[in-house]
Amino acid sequence: MWSELLPIGRHPDSGGYRRFAWTGADAECRAWFKAQAENRGLAYELDRNGNQWAWLGDPAAGDAVVTGSHLDSVPDGGAFDGPLGVVSSFAALDELRGRGAEFTRPLAIVNFGDEEGARFGLACVGSRLAAGQLTVEQAHRLTDGDGVTLPQAMAAAGYDADAIGPDPERLARIGAFVELHVEQGRALDLSGDRVGIASAIWPHGRWRFDFRGEANHAGTTRLVDRRDPMLSYAETVLAARREAQLAGAVATFGKIAVEPNGVNAIPSLVRGWLDSRAADQDTLDTVVTGVEKAAREYAEAHGVDLDVVRESFTPVVEFDHALRDELARVLGKTNDQDTGLRVPVLGTGAGHDAGILSGSIPTAMLFVRNPTGVSHSPAEFAAEDDCVAGVTALADVLEGLACR
Amino acid sequence: MWSELLPIGRHPDSGGYRRFAWTGADAECRAWFKAQAENRGLAYELDRNGNQWAWLGDPAAGDAVVTGSHLDSVPDGGAFDGPLGVVSSFAALDELRGRGAEFTRPLAIVNFGDEEGARFGLACVGSRLAAGQLTVEQAHRLTDGDGVTLPQAMAAAGYDADAIGPDPERLARIGAFVELHVEQGRALDLSGDRVGIASAIWPHGRWRFDFRGEANHAGTTRLVDRRDPMLSYAETVLAARREAQLAGAVATFGKIAVEPNGVNAIPSLVRGWLDSRAADQDTLDTVVTGVEKAAREYAEAHGVDLDVVRESFTPVVEFDHALRDELARVLGKTNDQDTGLRVPVLGTGAGHDAGILSGSIPTAMLFVRNPTGVSHSPAEFAAEDDCVAGVTALADVLEGLACR
Repeated sequence: MWSELLPIGRHPDSGGYRRFAWTGADAECRAWFKAQAENRGLAYELDRNGNQWAWLGDPAAGDAVVTGSHLDSVPDGGAFDGPLGVVSSFAALDELRGRGAEFTRPLAIVNFGDEEGARFGLACVGSRLAAGQLTVEQAHRLTDGDGVTLPQAMAAAGYDADAIGPDPERLARIGAFVELHVEQGRALDLSGDRVGIASAIWPHGRWRFDFRGEANHAGTTRLVDRRDPMLSYAETVLAARREAQLAGAVATFGKIAVEPNGVNAIPSLVRGWLDSRAADQDTLDTVVTGVEKAAREYAEAHGVDLDVVRESFTPVVEFDHALRDELARVLGKTNDQDTGLRVPVLGTGAGHDAGILSGSIPTAMLFVRNPTGVSHSPAEFAAEDDCVAGVTALADVLEGLACR
Repeated sequence: MWSELLPIGRHPDSGGYRRFAWTGADAECRAWFKAQAENRGLAYELDRNGNQWAWLGDPAAGDAVVTGSHLDSVPDGGAFDGPLGVVSSFAALDELRGRGAEFTRPLAIVNFGDEEGARFGLACVGSRLAAGQLTVEQAHRLTDGDGVTLPQAMAAAGYDADAIGPDPERLARIGAFVELHVEQGRALDLSGDRVGIASAIWPHGRWRFDFRGEANHAGTTRLVDRRDPMLSYAETVLAARREAQLAGAVATFGKIAVEPNGVNAIPSLVRGWLDSRAADQDTLDTVVTGVEKAAREYAEAHGVDLDVVRESFTPVVEFDHALRDELARVLGKTNDQDTGLRVPVLGTGAGHDAGILSGSIPTAMLFVRNPTGVSHSPAEFAAEDDCVAGVTALADVLEGLACR
């Protein structure tokens, strides 16, 4: 099952995956999902927002248990982010059938469309549309790097973009959603555990820092006459690292745009984007306020103007406590019958469909150990033993929820 | 004369000039030059490398005195860099004719093609070709941002690219070349002088710093697990400023390229270009060695790999001492009859056609005060009084050289 997915959308040079929404690679992944559903006698369903579902039992019965993830990727992403959750869902169902489990609730496996947002710049489009967190008008305005709109891309892939929109009836059928995902960090590797449970998605945001100085000749302008915004930018990059370290948070300047960006020109504009996340809102505020204050001092010292714009912000997402405790109880019993609870509960700095849906239905997440800690890169990894442990844990969880 | 040139190639949004080699704006500037020559009864000549000449007297007589500059611009450049030298040359000739000067040597005014290198990335193409400092093969490989080669661009503008190449016969006719240019710095403004003489062009070079780390998720990767090349880059930007300040040189990081350049991605690669210049070779070596040593330490501390490549280098260009002294004598007498010498002699960090030609013929440069010190920007400026002083100085120099 895993081996059939592996070659799809893999770039021969980078070894990374380029499975972008509504492209050929995406269509191949979707065909794979449909075949997996049909091979198992599951009822295949495509919803109005392009999310794929595979049902065991009657969806209309309500209070369904749903598991799954996504099959699309970031540019040159790894093999596990997304697909591990979908493949593990099918494998967990196989395992439960092997155990002779009897289902008392409907069960579904889902592949959410366009989770990574690699093509249109917005993550979790499929789940956002379903949950009403992205309006149809906003979705119609999404455009890829070639100027193709989301509706055009969907139409080109043979889908009906006129149908997209909120899907409360479908979400109302679901009693619990559990997403299994490769860990995007090294917490499990450091604690020595194969599987963990998510507590919350950290609050996170993006801030744009525009440092405006004065373009000038790099060879003839005396240092004292310069208003060089690259210097304030550099100082701010280092301040962000310092503030994050002090607060136990993360802060990153990973994207930059410079004008005129010439070797022999002092820049007129250096635009840097800060991505920062922390375990709680207060800590995040402390970091961002500290970085902005430092940046303003540096800018003033260099005669540079600074504008800071918050481009996006997502508050903390606490996963459903009852569902989380239920997962901990099931997995604790499974892993260690004496202590009762041995599965670590950890926060995460990454967004997920489970985070989007947590506003509408009870959701939970399982993480599988990633020894490299690397994410969104071909170096992302999970060992086979750990993947098997993930499938077993997911099967246990689904059995506890849907077969009680 | 000045007012006819002003609107050509001026961008309505930026107010800056976009007069790139072999474009329509360039053709308009060239037509203006030809008309100025013809209006004055000068013999117009286009050489094999696209440089324009306007002759008074017989070129074949030899030992000619030549003045001029260039009419092309950097992207969104100012009105003075280049055109001030050409316009002042025609104005100085008018002034000399008004004085009733009698010429004992042939005199020419020149407009060198593609001085700024804005389109093909190499500066001083017209003078380099003539002086044999750029081979025909190298010139044929030059390509603009749209993939158009230099020969294609020349052909599209109606010129014969097969003819380009070294032009020693033409250079052998010239006994002295004097280029007037707006100052690209504030030395004259600070000393309170309208006009200065160039001593030398500082040695300068460009070095590419490739910091290679590891791409990773900005939200989920612990700070201690990161190999973030943006941090080493930022530290190196600040080190460059510090080293330049200590040495009395200039150093600039004005161009950067980041991969993957995503807001939520720790970069895998940060490529920064260092431009550094100093009054002498030893000082420049001290600065660049210091920056590179610091960069290697920062990179190692962050687990980042560093490659440093020198992409270009130009040693110091000393202008002809005899010609320089002659200029100082003429202008010193003019400006202040008591002290004998009041015109400041200053080095410059910028390259010029006069620098290229100094390897073949005696060359000198005059600078006109620029109160903003700004260059390669619409904020570049010279007051009308100072421009007139520049024309007078150039006329004095030409009279001293060609009418003795």
